[in-house]
Amino acid sequence: MSDVTVDGQRLRDRFDAFNEIGATEAGGVNRPSLSDANREARDQLVEWFEEAGLEVRIDEVGNVFGRREGRDPDADVVLLGSHVDSQYNGGRYDGVVGVLGALEVVEAFSDAGVETDRPLEVVSWSNEEGVRFQPDMLGSGVYAGVFDPEFAYGLEDKAGKTFGEELERIGYRGEAPAEPDDLHRYLELHVEQGPVLEERGLDVGVVEGVYGFAWLEATFEGQADHAGPTPMHARQDAFVGAAEVAKAVRELTATGGTDLVGTVGSVDVWPNSINVIPERVTFTVDVRSYDNETIDAAVDRVRREVEHAAEREGLEYELEELMRIDAAPFDDGCIETVAAAAEEVGCSYTHLVSGAGHDASYLNQLAPTGMLFVPSVDGVSHRESEYTEWDDVVAGTEVLCRAVERMATRA
Amino acid sequence: MSDVTVDGQRLRDRFDAFNEIGATEAGGVNRPSLSDANREARDQLVEWFEEAGLEVRIDEVGNVFGRREGRDPDADVVLLGSHVDSQYNGGRYDGVVGVLGALEVVEAFSDAGVETDRPLEVVSWSNEEGVRFQPDMLGSGVYAGVFDPEFAYGLEDKAGKTFGEELERIGYRGEAPAEPDDLHRYLELHVEQGPVLEERGLDVGVVEGVYGFAWLEATFEGQADHAGPTPMHARQDAFVGAAEVAKAVRELTATGGTDLVGTVGSVDVWPNSINVIPERVTFTVDVRSYDNETIDAAVDRVRREVEHAAEREGLEYELEELMRIDAAPFDDGCIETVAAAAEEVGCSYTHLVSGAGHDASYLNQLAPTGMLFVPSVDGVSHRESEYTEWDDVVAGTEVLCRAVERMATRA
Repeated sequence: MSDVTVDGQRLRDRFDAFNEIGATEAGGVNRPSLSDANREARDQLVEWFEEAGLEVRIDEVGNVFGRREGRDPDADVVLLGSHVDSQYNGGRYDGVVGVLGALEVVEAFSDAGVETDRPLEVVSWSNEEGVRFQPDMLGSGVYAGVFDPEFAYGLEDKAGKTFGEELERIGYRGEAPAEPDDLHRYLELHVEQGPVLEERGLDVGVVEGVYGFAWLEATFEGQADHAGPTPMHARQDAFVGAAEVAKAVRELTATGGTDLVGTVGSVDVWPNSINVIPERVTFTVDVRSYDNETIDAAVDRVRREVEHAAEREGLEYELEELMRIDAAPFDDGCIETVAAAAEEVGCSYTHLVSGAGHDASYLNQLAPTGMLFVPSVDGVSHRESEYTEWDDVVAGTEVLCRAVERMATRA
Repeated sequence: MSDVTVDGQRLRDRFDAFNEIGATEAGGVNRPSLSDANREARDQLVEWFEEAGLEVRIDEVGNVFGRREGRDPDADVVLLGSHVDSQYNGGRYDGVVGVLGALEVVEAFSDAGVETDRPLEVVSWSNEEGVRFQPDMLGSGVYAGVFDPEFAYGLEDKAGKTFGEELERIGYRGEAPAEPDDLHRYLELHVEQGPVLEERGLDVGVVEGVYGFAWLEATFEGQADHAGPTPMHARQDAFVGAAEVAKAVRELTATGGTDLVGTVGSVDVWPNSINVIPERVTFTVDVRSYDNETIDAAVDRVRREVEHAAEREGLEYELEELMRIDAAPFDDGCIETVAAAAEEVGCSYTHLVSGAGHDASYLNQLAPTGMLFVPSVDGVSHRESEYTEWDDVVAGTEVLCRAVERMATRA
């Protein structure tokens, strides 16, 4: 057994202290991207990185790095991390487990006095959730060269504030360019956000890859007439159009024998008045699959449903693809290393595919990438009631540590 | 021809000045109930009432009256009016034409030095639109004894402010009890808010009655899981339920050979995030008909659709009937008087039924009631583009004047 071992109590203390920031009454956290609570969370991280002797680096889109030098400063980096922004009224585990777990792993090496061959870096990616500024996984996307920093700066939230302004406001528009290090491996620990591990009584999930997805935003525009005297045949009701598309999205997932999932998650109705026919409805469609052709077909189908609904109801429409990420099958070597680490720790595990998007999808474009999951009770995520047994968090962090040990040593 | 004649230019000047209050860039007005703009509008009315020599009375729910005494102060009153609160970003004509038209008619009697047998009163009803505080037609409803003042005071807007607080804040919680005068007749001039008069090239609509309606508010509650890893079969998606009910409402109006119209106008989704399955959706259903049994049947059907959608999707639900107003066929004598007045003025007209609710529906429970409509271009209403040709407004006001002349004289 290695001398390097994680300190579950230190991790626990930090986890509890960290989740005081933006805590909600219902036991969750409200730390959306670039909010004051998100700033406080970042400040806390930076403080802990410094206490752990890591060299802190903030890049131009607010990704926060902490680096522990290796024996060979020119060696490619083993990068570990996740994110600390949350959904609006989200859970305490999503993202946080991966960042604080990564920090714990790096400190475990320091505590044991073990120098690694390769540098280790811990990262907290900026704007992973994408609830305030779309697209999500923005920080890792810029880092991977998928988006320009200028694109990120120009994004607006619903109040019209830009990502650039808000990043500046909270003091996290850093000096470092958002460009990839020379990466050896990227590893991310995360809660499953689905029911599989808990249902099967397993400790850890070895992630083989991440579903691809597309995000669409549709707007229907009709006529805001009075709900009383306007005859049915004369109506152009934007909400009827949106309801038809939402039903079609649901039906789409039950056809064709695919793994497709589809969700209409955000719906804004204007003027949103009880006795006025909706004039304008903007809504989103999220479709996901582990097969890129299935996603293509679903996007085409949604487009046709929007066109047909607009034609039937006499609506104008716009349809924009906000985001598209291909399915990301991970590197076989990473998958094997994570599985071997789980065996070393004595964890039960299975291989699985992630339906949720992760920064790891973008990192997978840069370097061999792996992920491991710990169970989510009842599969709950993106809610205040999100919960993972503490022993599972510690076991997952231990597995991460064993995997890092293998990766950080030159063969 | 009578000596009493309306002054179209004075009416126009007032109409234009009045609609500076809360004016929107797109040419409408934004004066929702008990807003600052609504206070300003009320203040302007009170000033004009006083300038016209009317005795101003504010009642306990903010209905604003202006009284011109008749020859016989004990005679039952002829009451004329409408409302000056607006939809959010609504039109300039809805309600305003009826209040300023009524004021113009009363002044026309004064200008001509004609004393009527009966007192004339102009009224601006409080909270007619019901977009901020439901139910709508609140002021006339309290006046008619359908609601208690305490019920009105306790109503909350979406920000949690109560009708009572806000009424107090704008200074329109008056001393007078909200109780009916001894009424002889109630007459209301209004824009049609539908396409019939314009399509048929007519000057005036003689209203035979007002559709009844029911307002329902449904809430579905499901589970806010992550849109990626949550399998379709495990979802409890509150928006899928709402979409099904909205589609059912549309289909309901096309069956059974009835005059039913139905609208889902207001929809609020929580957490309203692109990658989170909607946990809670609250939406409204507005159903209307000139036949009360048709409304009953529609409410039952909506209830069943809500139950079925909840059962299919595994949702909890609540369904509340916010409001129910029976269809209101008007008094034959009033209908005849309005038609005779239209003929006297030389206006072309037809009889029609109002699909929109009006304060006249409640007044009809207290005294013989009549309404007349002027055309709405393209049938547009509850929108900033609402428009009526000015000549039509003046002609309608002239018809109102002639009808009042007949009613205000004792037989």
